[in-house]
Amino acid sequence: MPETVDKEALRRYFEKDRFATYVGIELLEISAGRATAILKIKEHHLNAVDMVHGGVLFALADLAFAAASNSHGTIAVAVNNSISFIKAAEGDVLYAEAREISKDRKLAAYSVEIKDKTEKTVVLLHGLAYRKKEKIDA
Amino acid sequence: MPETVDKEALRRYFEKDRFATYVGIELLEISAGRATAILKIKEHHLNAVDMVHGGVLFALADLAFAAASNSHGTIAVAVNNSISFIKAAEGDVLYAEAREISKDRKLAAYSVEIKDKTEKTVVLLHGLAYRKKEKIDA
Amino acid sequence: MPETVDKEALRRYFEKDRFATYVGIELLEISAGRATAILKIKEHHLNAVDMVHGGVLFALADLAFAAASNSHGTIAVAVNNSISFIKAAEGDVLYAEAREISKDRKLAAYSVEIKDKTEKTVVLLHGLAYRKKEKIDA
Amino acid sequence: MPETVDKEALRRYFEKDRFATYVGIELLEISAGRATAILKIKEHHLNAVDMVHGGVLFALADLAFAAASNSHGTIAVAVNNSISFIKAAEGDVLYAEAREISKDRKLAAYSVEIKDKTEKTVVLLHGLAYRKKEKIDA
Repeated sequence: MPETVDKEALRRYFEKDRFATYVGIELLEISAGRATAILKIKEHHLNAVDMVHGGVLFALADLAFAAASNSHGTIAVAVNNSISFIKAAEGDVLYAEAREISKDRKLAAYSVEIKDKTEKTVVLLHGLAYRKKEKIDA
Repeated sequence: MPETVDKEALRRYFEKDRFATYVGIELLEISAGRATAILKIKEHHLNAVDMVHGGVLFALADLAFAAASNSHGTIAVAVNNSISFIKAAEGDVLYAEAREISKDRKLAAYSVEIKDKTEKTVVLLHGLAYRKKEKIDA
Repeated sequence: MPETVDKEALRRYFEKDRFATYVGIELLEISAGRATAILKIKEHHLNAVDMVHGGVLFALADLAFAAASNSHGTIAVAVNNSISFIKAAEGDVLYAEAREISKDRKLAAYSVEIKDKTEKTVVLLHGLAYRKKEKIDA
Repeated sequence: MPETVDKEALRRYFEKDRFATYVGIELLEISAGRATAILKIKEHHLNAVDMVHGGVLFALADLAFAAASNSHGTIAVAVNNSISFIKAAEGDVLYAEAREISKDRKLAAYSVEIKDKTEKTVVLLHGLAYRKKEKIDA
């Protein structure tokens, strides 16, 4: 029985995410337990050695994780994220894809990959979310 | 034999960190293996449920971690960060303090705590850095 | 061009893993970037509250991770593992499956899931390995 | 107001940890939010390349973490552990020391270091525990 995800409600909910907007991250797709996000690299995303900042990569992966973990209609909050920086990003667009690995009554786990234009993995994030009972109000 | 840290060179180096500047994070202190950073919470740091965004907390902890791991004068890059979100931040100022737990030839490990005005830990970040041979050029 | 994995050499190599043998963990399958392992739960695998010990779950996931990360014929060592405990294990057999998420010249990342008889995820481990140049000698 | 820890009850509780006993790990000290454990390295603790197995290091750090997180008299269970392998262990004795970084109503965070005879850090583990309401029954 496929779950019905109210994509428009989720979209309105994440439009209220002021930091994601400020950084320039955009949500692309949301479905049950999955989400993708995109970022076009600008000057203000760089660190002291002209690479994409770890904080930018985290924020991008985090939005995909948040969308995937909130896709079931109830609020889920991050408990722990482990992020590995695999290779330097190439090109000027980055994609993040989150998928649900497991979902229990209280905890759910997600794997997020960020890829660059070479289709190679730049970042791998492993996220653990605590599932609250409150419904998403958008 | 206490290590001499060229704080001014490090400060110039981190002034080139455009994302930290964009977010509004400021480096307070750097010494050998330690660093502190501060953030004044503004509207653009909030997420969809009006809390400080996980990406903001990561970026704040990450700057303290980066400063501490680069404090020995050679470039160190993040390999893995594990971040735990312990409690919601209260008040409008957050402090991050990074301290070196261990430093080997290639890998060094750091523990970073973010505290709010209640002096309670909001975030705990455990960071692993790979130490390159290149000197910091500022 | 599919990589040829010398499964027998890898098997001989992991037969020298005295701790895995002592705990009772068995390697089932190895292919390029993937591996599975199995454990039959015994009395000595339990903790103070009669659940499978976190150390046992880690050791099981770790063997699958080690086999997958060493499957390319050169030695890879764990740098960081992040393990999430999702639900209590049911039944008396546990399976771990490791798959490679990314592989760069120096670092490779793996995702490992442990499932129990309910086919639900008990543990999710995210492993980062440093790839050495030495060949596996078995 | 210093918390009174019933060390004997905790000791009896951890005596029921069959896996720790099987591996040979011993609890040394427990106080409020802190614990230390010790392991004498034997042949069965080694991996395929004659180093102390990652699973052994995890189990050692985990016991110190479990004792520290259960030291307040109520049951706490691991939610996520992130473990970094910093250097190879030297000598034949390893010590783990866990200390509480933060403790909230539901979540508590711990930092555990394993040191070898050189007094250098071999392993750094960052552990997150979920605090239940049940009292420890020993």
